[in-house]
Amino acid sequence: MAEAVALSMSMGSYLKNSSLQATECSRQEPSSSLRSKFLGCKLTASQASLQLPSIKHTRRQRPCVIQCSVVQQSQVQAPDSVFITPDGRRAECYGVFCTIYDLNEVEKPKSWKKLLRVAVSGAAGTISNHLLFKIASGEVFGPDQPIALNLLGSERSRNALEGVAMELEDSLYPLLRELNLGIDSYEVFRDADWALLIGAKPRGPGMERADLLDINGKIFAEQGKALNAVASENVKVLVVGNPCNTNALICMKNAPRIPKKNFHALTRLDENRAKCQLALKAGVFYDNVSNVTIWGNHSTTQVPDFVNAKIHGKPVTEVIKDKKWLEEEFTETVQKRGGALIKKWGRSSAASTAVSIADAMKSLVTPTREGDWFSSAVYTEGNPYGIDNDLIFSMPCRSKGDGDYEIVPDLQINEWLATRIKKSEEELISERSCVAHLIGQDNGYCDLTEDTRLPGEQ
Amino acid sequence: MAEAVALSMSMGSYLKNSSLQATECSRQEPSSSLRSKFLGCKLTASQASLQLPSIKHTRRQRPCVIQCSVVQQSQVQAPDSVFITPDGRRAECYGVFCTIYDLNEVEKPKSWKKLLRVAVSGAAGTISNHLLFKIASGEVFGPDQPIALNLLGSERSRNALEGVAMELEDSLYPLLRELNLGIDSYEVFRDADWALLIGAKPRGPGMERADLLDINGKIFAEQGKALNAVASENVKVLVVGNPCNTNALICMKNAPRIPKKNFHALTRLDENRAKCQLALKAGVFYDNVSNVTIWGNHSTTQVPDFVNAKIHGKPVTEVIKDKKWLEEEFTETVQKRGGALIKKWGRSSAASTAVSIADAMKSLVTPTREGDWFSSAVYTEGNPYGIDNDLIFSMPCRSKGDGDYEIVPDLQINEWLATRIKKSEEELISERSCVAHLIGQDNGYCDLTEDTRLPGEQ
Repeated sequence: MAEAVALSMSMGSYLKNSSLQATECSRQEPSSSLRSKFLGCKLTASQASLQLPSIKHTRRQRPCVIQCSVVQQSQVQAPDSVFITPDGRRAECYGVFCTIYDLNEVEKPKSWKKLLRVAVSGAAGTISNHLLFKIASGEVFGPDQPIALNLLGSERSRNALEGVAMELEDSLYPLLRELNLGIDSYEVFRDADWALLIGAKPRGPGMERADLLDINGKIFAEQGKALNAVASENVKVLVVGNPCNTNALICMKNAPRIPKKNFHALTRLDENRAKCQLALKAGVFYDNVSNVTIWGNHSTTQVPDFVNAKIHGKPVTEVIKDKKWLEEEFTETVQKRGGALIKKWGRSSAASTAVSIADAMKSLVTPTREGDWFSSAVYTEGNPYGIDNDLIFSMPCRSKGDGDYEIVPDLQINEWLATRIKKSEEELISERSCVAHLIGQDNGYCDLTEDTRLPGEQ
Repeated sequence: MAEAVALSMSMGSYLKNSSLQATECSRQEPSSSLRSKFLGCKLTASQASLQLPSIKHTRRQRPCVIQCSVVQQSQVQAPDSVFITPDGRRAECYGVFCTIYDLNEVEKPKSWKKLLRVAVSGAAGTISNHLLFKIASGEVFGPDQPIALNLLGSERSRNALEGVAMELEDSLYPLLRELNLGIDSYEVFRDADWALLIGAKPRGPGMERADLLDINGKIFAEQGKALNAVASENVKVLVVGNPCNTNALICMKNAPRIPKKNFHALTRLDENRAKCQLALKAGVFYDNVSNVTIWGNHSTTQVPDFVNAKIHGKPVTEVIKDKKWLEEEFTETVQKRGGALIKKWGRSSAASTAVSIADAMKSLVTPTREGDWFSSAVYTEGNPYGIDNDLIFSMPCRSKGDGDYEIVPDLQINEWLATRIKKSEEELISERSCVAHLIGQDNGYCDLTEDTRLPGEQ
């Protein structure tokens, strides 16, 4: 099948009648049933030719001719299932979303913004199973923001990905105007305004952290290259798959076209957990806790900062007098929350992770409350805290709500904080050294003396 | 432990210092560790005595004396884990929610409504794992409606229930002001404004539908009695656990204090699926499809009504000319959607079911769009369609948004519809006969000749 068609479909068309001669794939078609499904698409020759030049990704471009004829709307059966060729190189529209999403049509509410495209990897997983519905519902980007979801799965998760698509269809979210599925990041990330990189290999039994860094690093290097090739030039990238800081660094290094400021690794779940524990200890509701920073790596070296945190606008240390708890138990509780949850729940947190991803995104598209900040692991270049200049490191950030952010300066770094932040920095430097081969450096060596575990790892 | 204390905790208190002599359970305490956790509570004697008379459920009331002394806020560790006695008879506050939810305090935004209490059974299951977060986020009842969640689990799901509670804590939803867990419906349903009855035994291998009716019927009879005893007098009850129509009937019959109109069984997922399939067939976006009714039982006899449905305000039959598809494939596709999803996804729909539950609730608390309606299985007494007067039967409803509804009259019932509606009615009459022993009738016999399956059953 031709990429021209995949692209045309994903760009959207809403035509009552159309007839088209286009390019047919020069190779053998995988099956006639897939082919006949595909012929239900709606497409004009003019659209196909108009869109061809916009194909940025040329690696697997093929000369193609397609015959696509749509006779009468009421007799058309739109494709009812995702179309993925056996070579797995395509993101395509799904079901009802193949026919409906031309936002230039009269049915688009006038007040709506331009379509926003969100690409999600690990889309068939449990975190995504919560997150996608939140994004489609309008909770993250607001009730006037139509959404396209591009979902990246794997060969193995293909059926589950279709299951997710069916459930999104059945949810009738008015803002969800496009749904494309695929297993090739070069297709799925095309024109993405946001890329949520959730999929990663979990650490298997007996696997060293260095192995995990290498295996996942390769995935994120490839995805960085794909983003570089096909995503929107100002795409925001949020890495959730662990080890997320170093994965984000790898991704960023492989995507030189994209501003380095646009790469984030998720530490918001840690921040939310820290706020909850401070509230619990102080006996206040959690919305009275503010200015909580997670410093460093999303690992057991992370530093939940009670020094600069506030309760009811007052320093936490004035409200919670139990210094031992703050300096010892608090940090440990936050770090071990994921593991405690796994013990209770039998699997890792999905719902609250999805909530924290939505929170992290909302923090970039809504103005930060005056005097407050949020945590995100961002690129350290020129940071005001003297952290090594080439890491993805969690720090206090604030945003005007335009998708961009700035690192909040002038937090008090006392000795307790400084020691721990240093340790997390050293860990990230070690991790970076382990993945030197993936970020264009040739002086790497891997010596992770302390085998720190990710939050939640058993 | 004293019910006085459980109640006081669930009513909320926000005290800096308190000291109290109250009643202690006359029986042996289960463990000193549980006891010491409990002693972290915040409670005044005046609160305890004030609240004692409001205990409606007297079955297990015990004379009690409690010593509860709280010294200083900053040294208090609020209970960090649910407290359930080994006899499993109590709903209690969870973690951070034990300390924070007195909405009479200054911190409550002035514009907020009175706390709304939502009880959920099957709270540790996958549907609830989506639904609870939606309710807590404000999506269902709006941004000015503080929420109390009372979660009903089972002995087996106790840990998972705590896992859900941990994730709700970590989500920092400002509207979620109370979270109580328990495994006794008489505790969990106390003062509930809404009861979402999701938990039910699934059909096991080789189990007849009659067996399923009996097993689940007993659960819903007990839950009906509990609602009758302790819930708010105008509680809205939505039954999701299958077979949901007859379960709702059983529940209603066992709760004579609660208005019969307040009982619903969920057919909204079927309606949503029907809308999606009509949109897909017509090549329009699903928000252009309206006036879709699901008639009858949430089973394979359900009748998705294309006769009265509209697309772009026009009768569906004028837009989709393919009569064979409408009369045969459409119904079958809707009925079998659940099963198709299980095949893809490996488990039954959870996310889209939760979305449809939220939709069903929103339909009762927001005014129905002029000229439109929604489907809900409701009590048939006095219905305008000549359906047997003593069933829970899905029909077109509309609401002023006050929690109440009326059945929409004057839909066109042609022969195609009439035949199928009759069949679904007969099935529900048979089911009712099978559960006669659970609804106070003594003329029951169970003769389910056709073993219809629930949507989604394999």
